Amino acid sequence: MKLLLYLSYDGSAFCGYQAQRHGNTVQQALNTATEALFGHPCDITGCSRTDSGVHAHMFCATITGQGGAPLVTTIPVDKLPAVLNIHLPDSIAAGYARWVPDDFHPRYSVSSKEYVYKIYNAPYRCPFEHKRSWHIPQPLDDEAVARMDLAAQHFVGRRDFSACMASGSEIMDKTRHVSSARVWREGDHVFFAVRADGFLYNMVRIMMGTLVDVALGKIPPDSIPERLATLDRRAMGRTAPADGLYLHRVFYDDPHVPGYQGGDTP
Amino acid sequence: MKLLLYLSYDGSAFCGYQAQRHGNTVQQALNTATEALFGHPCDITGCSRTDSGVHAHMFCATITGQGGAPLVTTIPVDKLPAVLNIHLPDSIAAGYARWVPDDFHPRYSVSSKEYVYKIYNAPYRCPFEHKRSWHIPQPLDDEAVARMDLAAQHFVGRRDFSACMASGSEIMDKTRHVSSARVWREGDHVFFAVRADGFLYNMVRIMMGTLVDVALGKIPPDSIPERLATLDRRAMGRTAPADGLYLHRVFYDDPHVPGYQGGDTP
Repeated sequence: MKLLLYLSYDGSAFCGYQAQRHGNTVQQALNTATEALFGHPCDITGCSRTDSGVHAHMFCATITGQGGAPLVTTIPVDKLPAVLNIHLPDSIAAGYARWVPDDFHPRYSVSSKEYVYKIYNAPYRCPFEHKRSWHIPQPLDDEAVARMDLAAQHFVGRRDFSACMASGSEIMDKTRHVSSARVWREGDHVFFAVRADGFLYNMVRIMMGTLVDVALGKIPPDSIPERLATLDRRAMGRTAPADGLYLHRVFYDDPHVPGYQGGDTP
Repeated sequence: MKLLLYLSYDGSAFCGYQAQRHGNTVQQALNTATEALFGHPCDITGCSRTDSGVHAHMFCATITGQGGAPLVTTIPVDKLPAVLNIHLPDSIAAGYARWVPDDFHPRYSVSSKEYVYKIYNAPYRCPFEHKRSWHIPQPLDDEAVARMDLAAQHFVGRRDFSACMASGSEIMDKTRHVSSARVWREGDHVFFAVRADGFLYNMVRIMMGTLVDVALGKIPPDSIPERLATLDRRAMGRTAPADGLYLHRVFYDDPHVPGYQGGDTP
């Protein structure tokens, strides 16, 4: 059995998820905390890479002993998040843990992921929003938000999203299936939520930057389909900063992982 | 004329508002920013002290040249917040500015202040709540929140609040008029809002700690009046941490400051 953990983290403290030689990463913090908890180094596999500064509400990772060896612990699984949180930095917290079969893979078993992007839309910046959202000072009225939502609908479907990919990725197959996309306002925040079976490098941030250009009248919403069809990054809008991006939810569709199919996640 | 500024700040970055020899304070950051903006040192008067780690949604401060000399600037007053924000650290932001008469005093002209205390009530800590709220892992159900609200009503009125004052204050008159107090839940947060003509040292934090002890069944809500009557700090509950405390709003009732009477604040 593997231990499956649900984690949230404030990405502003990290150079992304993936362990690397230089810079503090979420994976390295998990390595340190799990080694302290279990008394030996562990193998940790995450559900996704996240870029530097990107946050997670729900990031899934599996933990085993080294080389996939079983974990031995006397701590009941429902107590593990609290105990692990003692060893984790304040910027990461475990919120749920359960044992899953060995053939469950937190990345390959993903059926879809949902990202949420948070815009802070008020005339002046707010200290409580620093590194947590993208500050757009220009007023985005109801009509502008409706236009963003209209434009976002053009992202829905299965297509080649090359136009929404930053250079620097070696991915060959750029076809992704976006199952839902929507934009709405709550108070001073404008949110963009997008769910897909996978995402290309900077895909959500390019979508978000494009939607803001739509809101500001720089890009007509109904031009999105032809822009996507160019497969050319230059046809889309700017890249939104990492600050406002949250890996919101990971969906599994694995019959061996009861409770993790589709929407049945905590 | 003085320049009146409305500021918000993330208190976790500061050793309180008031300038001091050791430690970074909000006032010192304002000194640096206003000197950079106006080209000379300024006199800054705040509406209140706030303790180390306490936040502000709306903190009022007036700015003049040294010794009360008038400020000279070609920047229109409605553009001043944005320009000042360039010079302020990310943890402080100006949100509003206006010219007020010289006899306006940001502290002496205050008619009342409202503090809001934020509890994060979920089983595990959340990285986005770190230093922004008080994490109470025990579930506070609707009945517990109702009991807190009931207990909070006993704080309303004009009385000696010595029982809600930490030692270390030299204040002689401990009578304050609490005009409103309430407790409510929004999602994973429980809020306590209290408005009064003034507050004693740690008063809101002692009230909040007491209300949490009420919620957890350690203090009966109807025992609050007799506990307050003892004028003894030991009769109340614990002191809640600074992390969850926000100076939420400052009310003025000064006929020389149009737009600042009572509820007529932005």
